[in-house]
Amino acid sequence: MRISELAEVSGVPVHTLKYYLREGLLMPGVPVSRTRADYGPEHLTRVHLVRALVEHGGVGIAGVHRILEALDSPPPSRHELLGVAHGTLVGPAEAQDATPPDPAVTAVVAALGWGVEDCVPVVRRLSEAVVRARAAGVELPDEDLLRYAEAMRAVARVDLDVAGRARSAEEAMRTVVLGTVLVDPVLVVLRRLAQEAESATRP
Amino acid sequence: MRISELAEVSGVPVHTLKYYLREGLLMPGVPVSRTRADYGPEHLTRVHLVRALVEHGGVGIAGVHRILEALDSPPPSRHELLGVAHGTLVGPAEAQDATPPDPAVTAVVAALGWGVEDCVPVVRRLSEAVVRARAAGVELPDEDLLRYAEAMRAVARVDLDVAGRARSAEEAMRTVVLGTVLVDPVLVVLRRLAQEAESATRP
Repeated sequence: MRISELAEVSGVPVHTLKYYLREGLLMPGVPVSRTRADYGPEHLTRVHLVRALVEHGGVGIAGVHRILEALDSPPPSRHELLGVAHGTLVGPAEAQDATPPDPAVTAVVAALGWGVEDCVPVVRRLSEAVVRARAAGVELPDEDLLRYAEAMRAVARVDLDVAGRARSAEEAMRTVVLGTVLVDPVLVVLRRLAQEAESATRP
Repeated sequence: MRISELAEVSGVPVHTLKYYLREGLLMPGVPVSRTRADYGPEHLTRVHLVRALVEHGGVGIAGVHRILEALDSPPPSRHELLGVAHGTLVGPAEAQDATPPDPAVTAVVAALGWGVEDCVPVVRRLSEAVVRARAAGVELPDEDLLRYAEAMRAVARVDLDVAGRARSAEEAMRTVVLGTVLVDPVLVVLRRLAQEAESATRP
């Protein structure tokens, strides 16, 4: 199909598709004349993926490149899979940033007893998010943070079950990387729905 | 303090502060000469709040206006509080959008037995997030969605406990509205930390 048809089928405007092409997020079409290229179903799938990541997964262009590379690479071990997925959250430049995490947040992470104190980039991200929320007026005492962490452990159990069901290494990679980024918005909305449900049960 | 000092203390560049002023997100300083205004601690607090919402809460300018209005308004009942918080997720224009939620997602919401089928704007947002994730290659079967929902119910229990502890109606408003938006990024990072912890316990 032409780029105009790809735009119509995908619901993504032509100028955005051209932007994806320029940024290397969408592979070029097959040239059929000097000014026209042909796009197939693999382009449509890629457009859906890129749009979901950029517009709704809150992933920047560099993050999308990292994810696309991961999906195209030979899958590493299960543990490295998680590393790649988490690398989409923490870019390489950011990972080198030496700002140490807030000691109070590090103490909460240790109190969880999860043995994850060594995941420094993720702990640093947690610290940033907690410090920001507190600076903006959310109290977020340590006890609440511990309870939130326990609830998210239940989410992670589902995540690992999903990854464990993958029928191939490629599917495991896709599941872990995309599931981590694209299920976040689902969880955020489920939280609001659960607030409504929980609110109705309280006096 | 001068705007340059406010920039230094808050870590937000002067041109961004001027943008916040133009957009009405930051209240004007007290004029001390024809070309200078004075900013106080209330401006610093507001800058922290706006930056947290815009840069890290993923809230658009219109959403920040809705949140600031809510924080300045006389607080409504507990149930309306949630409505205001959820209004920060679903703008008025969007709420009027008549696209019905995906029937499969509506069926999952009904299967939860939470009695929240009537929260149409939130169910529609859930449907959009699920449809998008599935179109981008995440399978997300209904059983997984139900398990994710149960985990987020535990998060909502903490949320409602936090709101219930508020010492005043103003604090309840602040807690619910900001806690909903600014704790999302904390939960997302906790999910990754929990994935690492859960992964270590599996063979």
